[in-house]
Amino acid sequence: MQVNGQAYRSIWLAADGVGVEIIDQTRLPFHFHIVRLESVEQAMTAIRDMLVRGAPLIGATAAYGLCLGLRQHATTEAVENMAAQLIACRPTAINLRWAVERMLRLLLPLPPEQRLAAAYHEAGRICAEDVATNEAIGRHGATLIAAIHRNKKEGQPVNILTHCNAGWLATVDWGTALAPVYKAVELGIPVHVWVDETRPRNQGASLTAWELVAAHIPHHLIVDNAGGHLMQHGQVDCCIVGTDRTTASGDVCNKIGTYLKALAARDNGVPFYVALPGSTVDWTVSDGVAEIPIEERGEEEVLQLQGRDEAGTVHTVAIAPVATPAVNPAFDVTPARLVTGLITERGICAASRSGLLGLYPEQGQ
Amino acid sequence: MQVNGQAYRSIWLAADGVGVEIIDQTRLPFHFHIVRLESVEQAMTAIRDMLVRGAPLIGATAAYGLCLGLRQHATTEAVENMAAQLIACRPTAINLRWAVERMLRLLLPLPPEQRLAAAYHEAGRICAEDVATNEAIGRHGATLIAAIHRNKKEGQPVNILTHCNAGWLATVDWGTALAPVYKAVELGIPVHVWVDETRPRNQGASLTAWELVAAHIPHHLIVDNAGGHLMQHGQVDCCIVGTDRTTASGDVCNKIGTYLKALAARDNGVPFYVALPGSTVDWTVSDGVAEIPIEERGEEEVLQLQGRDEAGTVHTVAIAPVATPAVNPAFDVTPARLVTGLITERGICAASRSGLLGLYPEQGQ
Repeated sequence: MQVNGQAYRSIWLAADGVGVEIIDQTRLPFHFHIVRLESVEQAMTAIRDMLVRGAPLIGATAAYGLCLGLRQHATTEAVENMAAQLIACRPTAINLRWAVERMLRLLLPLPPEQRLAAAYHEAGRICAEDVATNEAIGRHGATLIAAIHRNKKEGQPVNILTHCNAGWLATVDWGTALAPVYKAVELGIPVHVWVDETRPRNQGASLTAWELVAAHIPHHLIVDNAGGHLMQHGQVDCCIVGTDRTTASGDVCNKIGTYLKALAARDNGVPFYVALPGSTVDWTVSDGVAEIPIEERGEEEVLQLQGRDEAGTVHTVAIAPVATPAVNPAFDVTPARLVTGLITERGICAASRSGLLGLYPEQGQ
Repeated sequence: MQVNGQAYRSIWLAADGVGVEIIDQTRLPFHFHIVRLESVEQAMTAIRDMLVRGAPLIGATAAYGLCLGLRQHATTEAVENMAAQLIACRPTAINLRWAVERMLRLLLPLPPEQRLAAAYHEAGRICAEDVATNEAIGRHGATLIAAIHRNKKEGQPVNILTHCNAGWLATVDWGTALAPVYKAVELGIPVHVWVDETRPRNQGASLTAWELVAAHIPHHLIVDNAGGHLMQHGQVDCCIVGTDRTTASGDVCNKIGTYLKALAARDNGVPFYVALPGSTVDWTVSDGVAEIPIEERGEEEVLQLQGRDEAGTVHTVAIAPVATPAVNPAFDVTPARLVTGLITERGICAASRSGLLGLYPEQGQ
């Protein structure tokens, strides 16, 4: 995607073919700052401290993290050790484990001296496949937006509500939930996006809004509390969100608060779509609420936040009394019964085992 | 309620018997600052800029605002003019209109020279009645909490989720939604409160948390997105919220986001109670979603927020890109079908016309 007239992805191999460069997403929307990763430890820190976030991008970063680690140690023990540490950086997103396990399957059978080159090659493939996957999600999702547009009054935009950031910053490029928006805009369909700010980390206010500004797409920021009211008053045509892990039965684990929006969508007859690459499906899990571990993050993410004062200085400020503690579950599970459809790189399906197996029949074997 | 060992209400007549003193709630939780109001214009500013907020406290402030205005002008035209301006300060809360109309009914039949003394007397009565009303709400609500406690395991607290601030700061004393909590604690029932931060103005983080710290009641701050997840995992025993306007059919108009919590409560079998004085019922309105005007507040409340840095300085910081606009509906409507019961000063009833008329039979005549 374009930033100030230059094409970017969210992660790329540096010009020297060794280091890996990322956009420090903790500094958006205030600063567009590129960080170079040179070790597996730096990659782990980037994942853990959320310089990179979004399930597909975490997976890509972990794959490149293994490359960086292999530059130091290429023994099987070292590779397995790094892989385990990378997977432990974030417990909820399935793509992290998926990407690391894909790398292991390739690397471990090779003699240690061949692993480094193979790793860089495979990490590059993971990134390229992610871009192609997301573009396909965008194409399929745009057909839904086009269908809604055909039923709107002349000149009225399609109002799409999204939660958190599942845009190109969350993937290598295009995004998942925002890919259909970008593709619809390419097709000339007028779109307006309701951007949930997405407390506590404000990925909507800081990342989704920033992407939409960069792409010149009309949008309004709303607090996470507002979506239900907008839906009650016919101001939302559909919701599209991403997912960090999808169960084989179509339950969707996404950023905390997604479930509340899905409930409101159901209560108001608003279609609720989830956009995902097949790699986000955890075929070993059926009951999302019972089985998916939900990451509990630090209370400071709730008690403090970051913003820019009038002079342009970024401050971290506390919003609660000093004596008040907080809890901070990072994700929630939206049961499949609340999901209108899953938008995947292979097409759109019902949020159910049979729906998913229709698109991914190889998983039923 | 006690603040640093001294008893306070949220509004009181100054020692000189003329001015009216309030706590500037825009400066909490960082500063406990008392403001003296000396004119109706100052009272209007206090209401409009939310130095005072909460339906009952807005009503009390408007009543005292009329007293302050009468010190300048006591003609019928002036009184009616001030009344209309006061009512226009906030469009959603019904108590504002209720309190002003009660004052008018008393004042207009009196000769102008008798109006000032009568107004101060009546404003004092409105405050005293509000305290008694809320204490009664607390007594009735505490019976519900006690009943939940009897079914909990030994030593387990009752987990109550609340949204926004409907504590003593929102009323003259005791609060509405928090009155049952304060009364339950008086009865020795262990209680733990989940405090929704309540974006955009963070009344939960800044006011409810502050009240609970002052009262030494165990609580955790959560983002507005988190309640559904906690309910899915059995961590919420009941929700209690306030209301700015209740329809004759039991629909509840409260702070934006209340509807989302009610949907989650229903989806998880968690009781959802609304605490209110009878004065909050608008007997002229039946369909809350269609009929209650929802205040749209300025976008800066979404785009900016206030917090304290490590040095103790309070900053207003922007959280979104400069080019991103916002919309800011301040309330939403929770349909009666999602409300388990209404906790009033006269007892608990179903959220329905017949439920309300059972407690307020004079309204059915």
